[in-house]
Amino acid sequence: MLEQLKKDVFEANQRLVSSGLVVLTWGNASGYDPESKLVVIKPSGVDYDKMTADDMVVVDLDGKVVEGKLRPSSDTATHIEFYKNFPGVRGAVHTHSVEATAWAQACREIPAYGTTHADTFHGPVPLTRFLTEQEVSEAYELNTGKVIVERFRGLEPMAVPGVLVAGHAPFTWGKNPADAVDHAIALEAIAKMARLTEQIHAAKQAPGLVPYVGEKHYQRKHGKNAYYGQSAPGDRG
Amino acid sequence: MLEQLKKDVFEANQRLVSSGLVVLTWGNASGYDPESKLVVIKPSGVDYDKMTADDMVVVDLDGKVVEGKLRPSSDTATHIEFYKNFPGVRGAVHTHSVEATAWAQACREIPAYGTTHADTFHGPVPLTRFLTEQEVSEAYELNTGKVIVERFRGLEPMAVPGVLVAGHAPFTWGKNPADAVDHAIALEAIAKMARLTEQIHAAKQAPGLVPYVGEKHYQRKHGKNAYYGQSAPGDRG
Amino acid sequence: MLEQLKKDVFEANQRLVSSGLVVLTWGNASGYDPESKLVVIKPSGVDYDKMTADDMVVVDLDGKVVEGKLRPSSDTATHIEFYKNFPGVRGAVHTHSVEATAWAQACREIPAYGTTHADTFHGPVPLTRFLTEQEVSEAYELNTGKVIVERFRGLEPMAVPGVLVAGHAPFTWGKNPADAVDHAIALEAIAKMARLTEQIHAAKQAPGLVPYVGEKHYQRKHGKNAYYGQSAPGDRG
Amino acid sequence: MLEQLKKDVFEANQRLVSSGLVVLTWGNASGYDPESKLVVIKPSGVDYDKMTADDMVVVDLDGKVVEGKLRPSSDTATHIEFYKNFPGVRGAVHTHSVEATAWAQACREIPAYGTTHADTFHGPVPLTRFLTEQEVSEAYELNTGKVIVERFRGLEPMAVPGVLVAGHAPFTWGKNPADAVDHAIALEAIAKMARLTEQIHAAKQAPGLVPYVGEKHYQRKHGKNAYYGQSAPGDRG
Repeated sequence: MLEQLKKDVFEANQRLVSSGLVVLTWGNASGYDPESKLVVIKPSGVDYDKMTADDMVVVDLDGKVVEGKLRPSSDTATHIEFYKNFPGVRGAVHTHSVEATAWAQACREIPAYGTTHADTFHGPVPLTRFLTEQEVSEAYELNTGKVIVERFRGLEPMAVPGVLVAGHAPFTWGKNPADAVDHAIALEAIAKMARLTEQIHAAKQAPGLVPYVGEKHYQRKHGKNAYYGQSAPGDRG
Repeated sequence: MLEQLKKDVFEANQRLVSSGLVVLTWGNASGYDPESKLVVIKPSGVDYDKMTADDMVVVDLDGKVVEGKLRPSSDTATHIEFYKNFPGVRGAVHTHSVEATAWAQACREIPAYGTTHADTFHGPVPLTRFLTEQEVSEAYELNTGKVIVERFRGLEPMAVPGVLVAGHAPFTWGKNPADAVDHAIALEAIAKMARLTEQIHAAKQAPGLVPYVGEKHYQRKHGKNAYYGQSAPGDRG
Repeated sequence: MLEQLKKDVFEANQRLVSSGLVVLTWGNASGYDPESKLVVIKPSGVDYDKMTADDMVVVDLDGKVVEGKLRPSSDTATHIEFYKNFPGVRGAVHTHSVEATAWAQACREIPAYGTTHADTFHGPVPLTRFLTEQEVSEAYELNTGKVIVERFRGLEPMAVPGVLVAGHAPFTWGKNPADAVDHAIALEAIAKMARLTEQIHAAKQAPGLVPYVGEKHYQRKHGKNAYYGQSAPGDRG
Repeated sequence: MLEQLKKDVFEANQRLVSSGLVVLTWGNASGYDPESKLVVIKPSGVDYDKMTADDMVVVDLDGKVVEGKLRPSSDTATHIEFYKNFPGVRGAVHTHSVEATAWAQACREIPAYGTTHADTFHGPVPLTRFLTEQEVSEAYELNTGKVIVERFRGLEPMAVPGVLVAGHAPFTWGKNPADAVDHAIALEAIAKMARLTEQIHAAKQAPGLVPYVGEKHYQRKHGKNAYYGQSAPGDRG
């Protein structure tokens, strides 16, 4: 059942590890088949290096397991909300990647500081509100999905393919599982760039290098009497 | 003697290196067998890539070597204090991982800033007091263990599976050696996330990208006249 | 056609990934053959691990494809401006490497803080102005090249082999594609060093370690009664 | 001639790359044979992955090449000063590793903030003065060595096995080439820890996670009704 999608979801999960976004078992990727209305998702708390494509769990849009011997990710109900509410979304990813999670913990949206951001996100990366105590106790993962959908009222999910859940971590999505992973990688990169941008913008210039030392280093490598390296001199001129 | 535990301890030590928590010989993992009341621990100052499972040293709860040709880790007395005082603990790890060590050096507990923290630590990561000069000169490693146990009065060690020793570095523990390594990995991640959370929370927003450049980048990749990539246009719509 | 240059450009593109400067498809390298006045460049938006040397695209100085089945990088027009205007330049690289991009997003030039900088850049790393809205809408990539060339009036491109485009990211160049990659690696390193230099310069000293703990650690490893490691004592004396 | 030392120096140079301290050709390691009073050092500007042990260059204490087809490192005169002036030193390393270089560029000594520091350095990591313009123009590399030796008046080089040269980068040394590399690795780690220590010490606490979300996450993984993972519930209790 859904063999290709299982393979895609499996590979998406593996790429979360190889790209450095996930340590231990802190992440999950899923895929959606709109014809059968079924979701394929990673099993809960299983080591990535022991997992196979066959371990992927198939659930319906009510979260009921349709195929698979293992329990699905504890975040399954959140993923399902994307597939029910965001047209065109067929892959979703949740990680606790460090830089994006730090913005979520600081409760700040990520401003659009450059073209790297604009290449993937049409506007700032949104932040949800905190869930209420009642939402947490009644149906935590389902309500996490609902709070994300609420935050996207008036936004186009395919043009802003990710979100920060306050105090928690990022979710991303896309037209298939691999696309959702790409957006998780992009989100982590722009989260780091944004942090550094604010640091560099606010920093004060330090005293520079004494000019004659800089000149010496440049000339010993590139000047007409250069003596660095085996060819020399003037190997760049 | 305790062949499986030796193997587990050996693998735990190796994983400290492969996960980037340990450079040179700066770390050690141990395991505890409650039936025989024996501890298996890494030898002191041996290169990780020359070590085998057979090099693990077996000591009793007085720190006396019961089996093994090498000297046990110089931190053995600290590990033993955990096994003597913390019910259920059967694995322990000491590293000088950079992010957690920086909190220990700054003499600050790590606040619970997000769910990544809460998934592993029930409350802030505690910080010990400094040892007194007398405690250092009398029995440094033993008293390091005693100061940790003192800090956990009123705390549940299995619910808060790690600590920062002031001016020194982290120790973690768990239900077996692998579990203690997992907690060391988790601690390093939340230590970094907490540092970045405070940085991002305190930072001032920088000027954003001029909007028409951002719009151009988004549209050249995703707009109806997109010309980035081989398929184009509008490959996300 | 230009088989060696295709191979050099292909390898330069691969090295952008292996050196950690490029994730996903965020970068491109090109090479220039002054005899034929032809440019060899990476195809647009193709996965690095599926690319071969034969996929490189050959274009003339008007950007017209002369050979190749794929569309050239969307940044081709920018690269061509370097080959037309910077004497001696025969390789060019564009990345969104995190540290250099953060300086571009913060709209700051990178000051010359040390000899690592001076070994590669003769003076600060320049920053362009933002393009105007008209420049963006008329010919974005071409005008990106023109704004860079404008910034280098009075500068020697071979002595300052790179630039930050405001709000965007770095470009570097050199005497061949490999040289341009070297400069991209150097730029990322000095961008990080400069950020840290300003941070360390502005930081306030924290309280130090209590002296008797430091003394204990030093002596247990190197003193005459050292007990760390297998040989001990005094293994450094 | 000196085959074992050549092999040791070659391996030390390779380890500078594999440990992440050196990119491109920015580093060099050497070794000293006190019987023959000869120094073995890396050739200048040669790619690490094309280098063999046979490429190592043998020079005497005047810097004259005694064996080898390639030119020795441009920093050879600096290394020789260590062997002439620091008793017991038989290996030396120069890198531009990012964290240590940032302290050198910020012109600050690295304070002893923790036991990681004290395990390797007996006191702060010293900083030299800048060379004068005359010292630079007359004999730059020799005078770099002399300024380091000057800084160590009253210090024990084997107890403080490294230095930061103002505006430049670190040098380390040891009882053999491998030991000098160990000290370069240790220096980079404590440089980063010291930067983070000052950052964390000066930071203000951010608002914490709302308690009921943290409680939910802890309990869904470790509480008596835990539903995370495959075994559950209460797998830590």
